[in-house]
Amino acid sequence: MEKVVAGVIGAGRIGKLHINNLKTNQNVRLKMVSELFADDLQEWFKDSGVEEITKDYQDIFEDEDINTVFICSPTSTHADLIKLAASYKKHVFCEKPISFNDEETLEAYEQIKEAGVKFQVGFNRRFDKNFQEMQSRVENRKVGDVHVLKITSRDPKPPHLDYIETSGGLFMDMSIHDFDMARYLVGSEVVEVYAKGAAIVNPEIGEMEDIDTAVITLTFDNGALGVIDNSREAVYGYDQRIEVFGNGGAIVADNETATNLKYYHSNTVEIDQPLHFFLERYNESFIRETQEFVDSILNDTETKVVFKDGIMAQRIAMAAKQSNDSGKPVKVNHEIG
Amino acid sequence: MEKVVAGVIGAGRIGKLHINNLKTNQNVRLKMVSELFADDLQEWFKDSGVEEITKDYQDIFEDEDINTVFICSPTSTHADLIKLAASYKKHVFCEKPISFNDEETLEAYEQIKEAGVKFQVGFNRRFDKNFQEMQSRVENRKVGDVHVLKITSRDPKPPHLDYIETSGGLFMDMSIHDFDMARYLVGSEVVEVYAKGAAIVNPEIGEMEDIDTAVITLTFDNGALGVIDNSREAVYGYDQRIEVFGNGGAIVADNETATNLKYYHSNTVEIDQPLHFFLERYNESFIRETQEFVDSILNDTETKVVFKDGIMAQRIAMAAKQSNDSGKPVKVNHEIG
Amino acid sequence: MEKVVAGVIGAGRIGKLHINNLKTNQNVRLKMVSELFADDLQEWFKDSGVEEITKDYQDIFEDEDINTVFICSPTSTHADLIKLAASYKKHVFCEKPISFNDEETLEAYEQIKEAGVKFQVGFNRRFDKNFQEMQSRVENRKVGDVHVLKITSRDPKPPHLDYIETSGGLFMDMSIHDFDMARYLVGSEVVEVYAKGAAIVNPEIGEMEDIDTAVITLTFDNGALGVIDNSREAVYGYDQRIEVFGNGGAIVADNETATNLKYYHSNTVEIDQPLHFFLERYNESFIRETQEFVDSILNDTETKVVFKDGIMAQRIAMAAKQSNDSGKPVKVNHEIG
Amino acid sequence: MEKVVAGVIGAGRIGKLHINNLKTNQNVRLKMVSELFADDLQEWFKDSGVEEITKDYQDIFEDEDINTVFICSPTSTHADLIKLAASYKKHVFCEKPISFNDEETLEAYEQIKEAGVKFQVGFNRRFDKNFQEMQSRVENRKVGDVHVLKITSRDPKPPHLDYIETSGGLFMDMSIHDFDMARYLVGSEVVEVYAKGAAIVNPEIGEMEDIDTAVITLTFDNGALGVIDNSREAVYGYDQRIEVFGNGGAIVADNETATNLKYYHSNTVEIDQPLHFFLERYNESFIRETQEFVDSILNDTETKVVFKDGIMAQRIAMAAKQSNDSGKPVKVNHEIG
Repeated sequence: MEKVVAGVIGAGRIGKLHINNLKTNQNVRLKMVSELFADDLQEWFKDSGVEEITKDYQDIFEDEDINTVFICSPTSTHADLIKLAASYKKHVFCEKPISFNDEETLEAYEQIKEAGVKFQVGFNRRFDKNFQEMQSRVENRKVGDVHVLKITSRDPKPPHLDYIETSGGLFMDMSIHDFDMARYLVGSEVVEVYAKGAAIVNPEIGEMEDIDTAVITLTFDNGALGVIDNSREAVYGYDQRIEVFGNGGAIVADNETATNLKYYHSNTVEIDQPLHFFLERYNESFIRETQEFVDSILNDTETKVVFKDGIMAQRIAMAAKQSNDSGKPVKVNHEIG
Repeated sequence: MEKVVAGVIGAGRIGKLHINNLKTNQNVRLKMVSELFADDLQEWFKDSGVEEITKDYQDIFEDEDINTVFICSPTSTHADLIKLAASYKKHVFCEKPISFNDEETLEAYEQIKEAGVKFQVGFNRRFDKNFQEMQSRVENRKVGDVHVLKITSRDPKPPHLDYIETSGGLFMDMSIHDFDMARYLVGSEVVEVYAKGAAIVNPEIGEMEDIDTAVITLTFDNGALGVIDNSREAVYGYDQRIEVFGNGGAIVADNETATNLKYYHSNTVEIDQPLHFFLERYNESFIRETQEFVDSILNDTETKVVFKDGIMAQRIAMAAKQSNDSGKPVKVNHEIG
Repeated sequence: MEKVVAGVIGAGRIGKLHINNLKTNQNVRLKMVSELFADDLQEWFKDSGVEEITKDYQDIFEDEDINTVFICSPTSTHADLIKLAASYKKHVFCEKPISFNDEETLEAYEQIKEAGVKFQVGFNRRFDKNFQEMQSRVENRKVGDVHVLKITSRDPKPPHLDYIETSGGLFMDMSIHDFDMARYLVGSEVVEVYAKGAAIVNPEIGEMEDIDTAVITLTFDNGALGVIDNSREAVYGYDQRIEVFGNGGAIVADNETATNLKYYHSNTVEIDQPLHFFLERYNESFIRETQEFVDSILNDTETKVVFKDGIMAQRIAMAAKQSNDSGKPVKVNHEIG
Repeated sequence: MEKVVAGVIGAGRIGKLHINNLKTNQNVRLKMVSELFADDLQEWFKDSGVEEITKDYQDIFEDEDINTVFICSPTSTHADLIKLAASYKKHVFCEKPISFNDEETLEAYEQIKEAGVKFQVGFNRRFDKNFQEMQSRVENRKVGDVHVLKITSRDPKPPHLDYIETSGGLFMDMSIHDFDMARYLVGSEVVEVYAKGAAIVNPEIGEMEDIDTAVITLTFDNGALGVIDNSREAVYGYDQRIEVFGNGGAIVADNETATNLKYYHSNTVEIDQPLHFFLERYNESFIRETQEFVDSILNDTETKVVFKDGIMAQRIAMAAKQSNDSGKPVKVNHEIG
């Protein structure tokens, strides 16, 4: 293929982000965006570099130039859109999670497999330079056998309550990135989850039967253990730290900051807070994510985050929810089909 | 009281450590040491600053000058020795854990209470300058309400297998320090434990029905969550890091190192490993631990680590073991008597 | 002006760098490049995004579309090209140093002033995020009155000896960036220089009457002192650290690294080396440098690095050389015209 | 010798410091202290562990038990007291500087040499764990040939003006420690000094013809260059950093802090300031300094800071003053006798 001709479904926060990144990619022609609330986007549209804007995603599927769709609409629509894309033989980039339901996801998976198109899930953190280097060192056995994986992943602020309502819950919305990181870094499947959650940032979140704080224990197929701690609110910024520990050593990734300045004054010594928002923190990883997806289409190579990665992260999230609800550890099946 | 006149029971590694620290304390007269294998210690005894050495601990109890005993013998003997000390009205410093058995420990507790003597458990880490400052800031609400406590606690090397046999297991021998730290730093009782262990450092440890790696989830009475990860072997040194996270911020304590040098050369940049052994790492905290115990006797103030601290750490360790055995979270009772 | 139409004179390492950055700038049309050795560049030219390539820079001046020239040719040609640009009323971006000769530089300055075109010198480090934030804090008096400025600036490797021959010497070629940083950060003119150099990295550099190592003391008009230490070879990478110290505190900028990983293993703990090459280290600052220059043309605002900045850095470099040759401190005149 | 029997001359701040350290040394009997203002010290004397206190230092010299004197009186008295000690064949520990006058110092040196007694100058920083390890690595060629030495040495606050009056000036009082460090770390003599000073912390210091801020360039016999920057006031604490850079790499020593805690909150991230006072910062080095001096007497080995070290640091200080006064670099003679 000479060029990716792209259609983007959904122009909310994440859709706009991908649109911005796609328009600087010289291998991409950004042809069409569909957005239900397209009327509100007229102003933005002018400078967006997008050729056409529509309210009906069907226009994207029926456009013969478009060979690749970016699914950035609400999660509840993902599985159907993936199937539609498969039927139109278009390559698919789909935001996380694929769906809230294992069967639906597996159906979509089957159709993608059959259609033989490329597929990538939006686990952008795999493209972060720190975590990528960490993964590569782990793979090269710099820490020997992995014994313990530790992820601290905290948002700077809880989302609006109405977002939370449709989010699928903390595990499916937020921890799912960490579940993917866990599999990516350890290189082994998660076979059991125990999750302990609490609604202590904001009790209203608890009233919605969701949680805002969690400690999650993972057991990997290779015998390693993992622990993730999540919070919806770290007042000092977006806290994203990972550590892999094994019988040969440990590798620790710290937060990224805007500058490396140290400021000594008469009261204390100050250093920068972690970058405050996921768009800043993972800016480069979002760019690389679409670049590498585009490259894998153009060069006909496997994408860096395949369908199974989406399925497994979602299953771990469901198991975590079940564990938190039941108060017991829950097994995770990693066989597909 | 003008001076502490001390008798030390047990002159193994930890007993010798306390003897060394006591002899530099100007408020202490170190009168007698009892050690079953006293014959092997003749050489050491000469330079030890100890006046008398005996094979029979009864000599210590019957010595009327001695007003304080340091119990550094195997755990199985602690409870009886504490009761004996109470009956002789001597103050007691007892190494951790108090015993492997809640009833036994409670009996000893009752007798100490009745005797009205001072009692301190050997949770030396409470006297570490980093953790002490951390506790003080948490108490002063520098992180607001605590939401998550994280402890990473890894030994540089597993002990000999015959030590492991009588150790009471990883939770009772090693994690018990972390359980105490958890209560100390969060300032709230642990009400539930879920522990997931593995024997992946050395399978022989597994054959002894012990583990060498663990991830432990704690639930505190105030709603906070905690997580401890333990390993018997960190090849790069004694890894001791703690973090307290709350709705007002977070405080992180890193490892201590021998120097703060950074060495830049053509291959990489090197910094110091964590101090390698607990005797180096906690050297100062061991010194302060006995100093403050001695001061609390001389000034008739409460000790910094009271009997209940010993009871609770031990109960959490027992709950952790039960959880790991059963695969389920286990409640911890924090009522005494 | 609607769009900058650019011509680039010289397509060596630095010329190519600017060409690459200009072609991603949506406000720039990169029309022509002149390069004496254009024949060797046919391959590169294809992908360069440049419309025309010529051997004769006169073509650039005579092209009526081109409103802005980027002078990236050898230093000996700068002054004449600047004057030519002034006569053609084209805006000028000129690489550092402007020339090796104060009079020549002042002549060029007069003509630019008269022509009323924009002018910017290539002191890219002013656009580094760390140093920019440092400057802003100093300006906002976060360190109070500046007392001492410290710059450590070391190259990873000496250039080829034939480059050194025409470089103008260490002070004019390398330290000149630091002299500009000094003025930029302290916000006061340098009035005296004492330089002590040595040829200890490579004695052949000494045989060419140049040096490869230097310690330079600066005195600022406001009473502050400064010190720069330079080396042509830091085997661990490109070492670029700055510190501003005042009566209100200090701000320290450390090196940038590829990742923030810490790798603990059985021998040591490793962190990343400083980024190894100026193109990586200052990649973003080179991009911003041209962006802001382009913006200042489009918005008709003052450039961020004006002609006087070029003149002064050059005078300080000349004074440093004179000081090193004579063994005495040398005054620097900061009056122009 | 079995035991050092010590007399201390002068019980000001530094004298009391040594007295405190000596009394915890089991190889030392602290017999007598002489202090002109002994009457004011009655209260302190009670708890000092000193056997006798006198107003007349002659009592110390005439006491036949005393085999070692610690000279902690004002600098103007040092040389005479050293000569007296030599004539009484007593070992000498002398605070820095030995004197303000090269001839006087050399006379004292000759008499010590003739008497064959041990002598140590009070350059305590040589006993700091960071700098000691740095020196050892430099000696083991971990940075190859040394090219540049950098010392930042700043006091937290200027001393009282009346102290400054008799201090000998910044170079002799404060930088002298850095001059000694320079020789110690580089392992080569300083052959030339250029010093640029300013009175910008407090103009009253300037009125006394002293300075409070300085940048000092050193040239070493082996071709290396050095730079020291001094300030009498760093509002954030006692700033003591050193770096050795060579053709094999660099080693950097940072400040010491009370804890290693990082505190993240909604405004910033805070770390500890450098330890605020020299007594805290160099507490351990002062202890080791006397310990090693005592050991060298008991084991009849060479002291770690010999007479020549005192002579040379003093000469460099005098050269620095001369350079600052004359505005020219000044040669330093390192031949003795």
